[in-house]
Amino acid sequence: MVASDLARAYSRDNSDQFKSELFEMLRIPSLSGDPAHAGDVRAMAHWLADHMTSLGLDKVAVMETAGHPVVYGEWMGAGADKPTVLVYGHYDVVPASLEDGWDTDPFEPVEKDGIVYARGVTDDKGQLFIHVKALEAYLKTSGAAPVNVKYLIEGEEEVSSPNLLPFIQDHLELLAADVCVISDSSMVRIEEPAVTHSLRGMTYLEIHVSGPKEDLHSGFYGGAVHNPGVALVQILNSLYNEDGTIAVEGFYDDVVQLTDEEREMIARTDMPEQQLKDATGVPKQWGDARFTIKERVSARPTLDINGIWGGYAGPGPKTIIPASAGAKLSSRLVAAQDPNVIFDLIKAHIERVTPDTVNVEVKLLTVGRPALIPFDLPEMQAAKRAYERGWGHTPVFTRGGGSIPVVADITDLMKIPVVMMGYGLDTDGLHAPNEHYRLEMFNRGIETAIVYLEELAAIGE
Amino acid sequence: MVASDLARAYSRDNSDQFKSELFEMLRIPSLSGDPAHAGDVRAMAHWLADHMTSLGLDKVAVMETAGHPVVYGEWMGAGADKPTVLVYGHYDVVPASLEDGWDTDPFEPVEKDGIVYARGVTDDKGQLFIHVKALEAYLKTSGAAPVNVKYLIEGEEEVSSPNLLPFIQDHLELLAADVCVISDSSMVRIEEPAVTHSLRGMTYLEIHVSGPKEDLHSGFYGGAVHNPGVALVQILNSLYNEDGTIAVEGFYDDVVQLTDEEREMIARTDMPEQQLKDATGVPKQWGDARFTIKERVSARPTLDINGIWGGYAGPGPKTIIPASAGAKLSSRLVAAQDPNVIFDLIKAHIERVTPDTVNVEVKLLTVGRPALIPFDLPEMQAAKRAYERGWGHTPVFTRGGGSIPVVADITDLMKIPVVMMGYGLDTDGLHAPNEHYRLEMFNRGIETAIVYLEELAAIGE
Repeated sequence: MVASDLARAYSRDNSDQFKSELFEMLRIPSLSGDPAHAGDVRAMAHWLADHMTSLGLDKVAVMETAGHPVVYGEWMGAGADKPTVLVYGHYDVVPASLEDGWDTDPFEPVEKDGIVYARGVTDDKGQLFIHVKALEAYLKTSGAAPVNVKYLIEGEEEVSSPNLLPFIQDHLELLAADVCVISDSSMVRIEEPAVTHSLRGMTYLEIHVSGPKEDLHSGFYGGAVHNPGVALVQILNSLYNEDGTIAVEGFYDDVVQLTDEEREMIARTDMPEQQLKDATGVPKQWGDARFTIKERVSARPTLDINGIWGGYAGPGPKTIIPASAGAKLSSRLVAAQDPNVIFDLIKAHIERVTPDTVNVEVKLLTVGRPALIPFDLPEMQAAKRAYERGWGHTPVFTRGGGSIPVVADITDLMKIPVVMMGYGLDTDGLHAPNEHYRLEMFNRGIETAIVYLEELAAIGE
Repeated sequence: MVASDLARAYSRDNSDQFKSELFEMLRIPSLSGDPAHAGDVRAMAHWLADHMTSLGLDKVAVMETAGHPVVYGEWMGAGADKPTVLVYGHYDVVPASLEDGWDTDPFEPVEKDGIVYARGVTDDKGQLFIHVKALEAYLKTSGAAPVNVKYLIEGEEEVSSPNLLPFIQDHLELLAADVCVISDSSMVRIEEPAVTHSLRGMTYLEIHVSGPKEDLHSGFYGGAVHNPGVALVQILNSLYNEDGTIAVEGFYDDVVQLTDEEREMIARTDMPEQQLKDATGVPKQWGDARFTIKERVSARPTLDINGIWGGYAGPGPKTIIPASAGAKLSSRLVAAQDPNVIFDLIKAHIERVTPDTVNVEVKLLTVGRPALIPFDLPEMQAAKRAYERGWGHTPVFTRGGGSIPVVADITDLMKIPVVMMGYGLDTDGLHAPNEHYRLEMFNRGIETAIVYLEELAAIGE
């Protein structure tokens, strides 16, 4: 038996143990966006570091940043003549609570019919852990892996990684590798795996509209005071055209247009309207009719309202003019849009349309650049073979609609390809109530990751 | 000394006791709009009933309705040949909490420089109590008042009195009176009292926009799903014209236009822009430029957003497309707009403009009809004399911008005039943080109410 077969057998024999370790991770509410959970985020980092140490990795450390820490660990036993793969993942999660509509406690994993329900199970704890278990499988069977492996697991991906870029810049030597692999994306279907070669970037901002110094009685002042809620609605409305496109001047200027060849490739994994409706429950598709649904959600930029608030939202009526109103807005960007330029354009638009009857403030929350990776690189083709051998199907190369800011950062700073081998499904409910993950995805993912390390070792041989 | 002078002297001698009783009322958080406070609302009703009983009133009762109870009590000792005055007031309050920006606990009254800070102190506990103390002053000095007095104190005014109309209909004989007096409005200034002869009505509604069955990851679906927050913004925006008028078809059809004479009268108590800015903190006036500020806030209808919500409003970013978004809207109406007709018009507008990419629901919360009372009635002129003697100034007759639905109900059902003698100030911060009330208003109000009972007795003599 070759080493990868021994490792695969080990992973199958130990699947219950792997699952129980994953459950331990899922019980830690590592919400990076909420300061109240900073201690949990740190506890999660230490759990991972302790686990890596227990597997025999070297240089394991919880490394400080200006925000939440990075977990690092490495196994360099394959030798200098073998390639080094850098595994990136994130141990932080987005908020979740029963009141949001969860059927069970989001931080107490529940298994039902082979599916595990918990916040972070698919995004990204369950996916990053695949690569830890793949190395363990080699070490426990052959005592060595076919390539060197480094782990860079951050705790701020869900707040758009504000401190990761400086961390990478400061640790280029420590992190040096030949290829980076990330599992934080989705397949088309279980039997149709995918390698993502493009991701959307992001500009996330907040707008605050204020008027009166405090809430006013709507009977006394209604009619003579510009209601901040109304002003917010008017400002936000001006950002959109009726055809679903974005009305901010210059917004589309830097978008790399899709070629006919790419459009054909995207069409092969198109999302029919019925599939969109079934997956989301919306009554009908929406958006820029010049593009297909799949193109709109992966190769075109967006501008969404992620949250809106102002005034009284409790039970019954309250007859006030609210003192202020606000919204969170985010734009998913495509190559070659610059998130800071997009922020400036949106901010300028808002400031231009805001009347002098109210005050407005526009704040940048986070940015992330879009990424586009050629899929004829050997490390990408190795991933294709790994899926064929480890998963049992040839993967498609797809564009992802989500944002992993680190992809553009690693590509630019380390000059190495980033290979995105997703083991999730778009229907996993990530960032939503009842996030879930099939154990089958976890277990087959570990086997595919095992084979990938072998395929990487074979490049150039 | 005449009876009213004895009563006035008594009220001055007992002002500390009156204040301490008022504080007891203010400590009861009788929030009618929040089911969690139903017990407090009831406790407030019983406090009032017990207090009336202790003063020797008859037929005192906490009377059930389909919602919060009505407190009734009467003193009929003046005899059948004397007029009967029905005092209306409300013992319920709107929500308040420290987080809203209160400097002190809203339900623990604090006195500072002759001003009392507490939720409900001016709206309406401190004003309704004036009429209880006025009767007490007569009973404790002369053993009798110049007229018969009945009290109808409800607990649902702040939720637009859904059960008061049926209550009045069911108790017309018990409530029978010659005139109704209400203190739940404002003066122009302390030295310029006012009798309100017009009030705005109200249509209060909620709109709910929904799309996906749960919050979606904005990276996976952004661009192909109509964001319910965006759809809400687009729908609400369509309700307004750029000039500050309301774009709902037919909205203004039934508005009684102001005569030149009324516009001249309103101009005498106009609100200069600087006064509006000082009182509210807004950077500039806003609204329909064909009308003065005072006309806009009293004689013209409005449409305000009282609350708006949807998606994530916590700290940091969360990249979701919210499953739903909603808003509370209310329209202040003027004679002869019908609140149910206005609801139908707004609902029809919303349903017409809502695209089929989202679902919309429009719910009526409450309605109240506008009121307009002739100010040459003898009961209105008696109020004028009461202010001259009791307060020391001739009052102006003004239009109030707020809504007291009962006014139209009593006028229509009981066929008696409603005299609104306000002892508040527009700057008292009612429905806002740090609601407050000058003790001077309370004490001089009691003396004016004492004189008013005497002036009513003199009508027709």
